[in-house]
Amino acid sequence: MPPVTIDLSAKLSAFSSLWQPRIVAQLNDYHLKLAKIEGNFIWHSHPETDELFLVLKGEMKIAFRDGVASLGEGQLCVVPRGVEHRPSANAECHILLIEPAGTPNTGDAGGERTAPGDVWI
Amino acid sequence: MPPVTIDLSAKLSAFSSLWQPRIVAQLNDYHLKLAKIEGNFIWHSHPETDELFLVLKGEMKIAFRDGVASLGEGQLCVVPRGVEHRPSANAECHILLIEPAGTPNTGDAGGERTAPGDVWI
Repeated sequence: MPPVTIDLSAKLSAFSSLWQPRIVAQLNDYHLKLAKIEGNFIWHSHPETDELFLVLKGEMKIAFRDGVASLGEGQLCVVPRGVEHRPSANAECHILLIEPAGTPNTGDAGGERTAPGDVWI
Repeated sequence: MPPVTIDLSAKLSAFSSLWQPRIVAQLNDYHLKLAKIEGNFIWHSHPETDELFLVLKGEMKIAFRDGVASLGEGQLCVVPRGVEHRPSANAECHILLIEPAGTPNTGDAGGERTAPGDVWI
């Protein structure tokens, strides 16, 4: 059997909870995750890895200590390792995240917003 | 200065050559590349790495020795390391590739279709 084709829209239709990334694909030791976001997340950083955000639908902002990146559909941003950031969205926004398997969504901050890191959809 | 926002449509507008991937972002030691494809590529495999294809516009097929994966807009496929494959598209198709930096487009096959591996756009 050839590798499966993964449809991002279909995967997005299959969950509704916010700030709870779902893994849709694995590439070597990296995971591609879908997430639905709205409102403000917490400030955090990932000391061991860069993190990539690609907006699939809607708009988001990523606040940094020295400015803000604004992302619309089809736009991406790579947050360098160790750099504090706070994702947010004024309205529901759908994003694709790429990062090493096991990277926690709250990075070094931890706390109650930490989502399970191994949920496939 | 915060990290830059990268617009995939704008990057795609900036080149027209087929089967010549352009790097748009780096995530740790991985590259995200855009490519425009049409017609048949060559059979090849990447012995050292998986390779991810995500269709941004149009449709493509990836032939395998045991079947074919068909991908439309918003659909992706991960080709496992070492698995022979041949990408193709009946009409111009725009794709996002994710793979380790330095991965040659022709893998173990080499030859005249090999593109420069380090071209940013």
